[in-house]
Amino acid sequence: MSKIITINRQFGSGGRELGKRLAEELGYAYYDNEIITQIAGRSGLAEDYVSSIVEKKPIVYYPITIGRTFLAHTPAPVDFNTQIYSEQHNIIKELASKSDCVIIGRCADYILSEHDPFKLFVYADMPSRMERCRAKAPTDEKPLSDKQLARHIKEVDNERADYYKFFTGQKWLDAEHYDLMINTSRMVIKEFVPALATMIQNKK
Amino acid sequence: MSKIITINRQFGSGGRELGKRLAEELGYAYYDNEIITQIAGRSGLAEDYVSSIVEKKPIVYYPITIGRTFLAHTPAPVDFNTQIYSEQHNIIKELASKSDCVIIGRCADYILSEHDPFKLFVYADMPSRMERCRAKAPTDEKPLSDKQLARHIKEVDNERADYYKFFTGQKWLDAEHYDLMINTSRMVIKEFVPALATMIQNKK
Repeated sequence: MSKIITINRQFGSGGRELGKRLAEELGYAYYDNEIITQIAGRSGLAEDYVSSIVEKKPIVYYPITIGRTFLAHTPAPVDFNTQIYSEQHNIIKELASKSDCVIIGRCADYILSEHDPFKLFVYADMPSRMERCRAKAPTDEKPLSDKQLARHIKEVDNERADYYKFFTGQKWLDAEHYDLMINTSRMVIKEFVPALATMIQNKK
Repeated sequence: MSKIITINRQFGSGGRELGKRLAEELGYAYYDNEIITQIAGRSGLAEDYVSSIVEKKPIVYYPITIGRTFLAHTPAPVDFNTQIYSEQHNIIKELASKSDCVIIGRCADYILSEHDPFKLFVYADMPSRMERCRAKAPTDEKPLSDKQLARHIKEVDNERADYYKFFTGQKWLDAEHYDLMINTSRMVIKEFVPALATMIQNKK
């Protein structure tokens, strides 16, 4: 059975960067909601499309720009549409069955529980998250005030928690649910990823 | 300024074992409440005694049996006596000023905040914790039932949370407070400690 690492994360905490670097370090595929949404969107028959992609390239890597969804003024895409959830659910199961991978969000930790994934939660203090969001925001847009940005960050997190609760019945930010919770406020992600990869490989 | 790692932990989660192995891995001193209590108890003038110990051996290592306080039926020593807290507070500051060290509990993360310690929280699910407690319990004692043991474990954790809140004003199990939270339920402590030590050294 494939080795799976799932990452739930607070908005602006660097969860995607961590996931992507971890995938590179371990030679795993990397999937996040943008990739999964693209896959679902490209074909009316999502499953066939996924199979065709995966059969050609067992290790699937979609180069994406880290931080594309750090836009300060656009809420992260959260859609409670159960049909979309159901499509993505199937895609996630299909992708996970084909190769070792890192998956960001999308309730993947719950959907893939039979794979016994290593479950990470990535978080950070508000100043760090605001700093990261500002660094990734498009330069041609008028920046939000600190108050607006902080509020936006909290809103995205609340949406994620609600989404998770809605589809899994479980609490999103529950320590007992995760194997490791990493506060990136005082850590340099690219520097600790190799050590983190080693720790993860030590799971019983 | 000395490098400090502080470990707060749920009862039965292996926090001490993790701390001791981490100290050995990094070549740090290791202190827990037993050691600090011993130091405080050995001399009426705790500070002079501490200084005399530390000046002779800058890297202080007290061989203790891991798990001595895993006794299933004896509550962990929690004393809200402010005088004892004050003595231990001074001892902790003294020890931390002399060498790099790992300190278990005792609100050390709060007491030594000016050292900017790396703050760990170690936890585990209830079955793991019960298993660990049973493995460490004295064999000549009548074992507790599962229900009694689970209750005892929760009581110890509640006491720790109360102690922490009382002396620091802060919530003990608050993710934002820690740099890393490790769930030992599905990890083998001695196997991941070297990687963890490397991660810790990457703190900004």
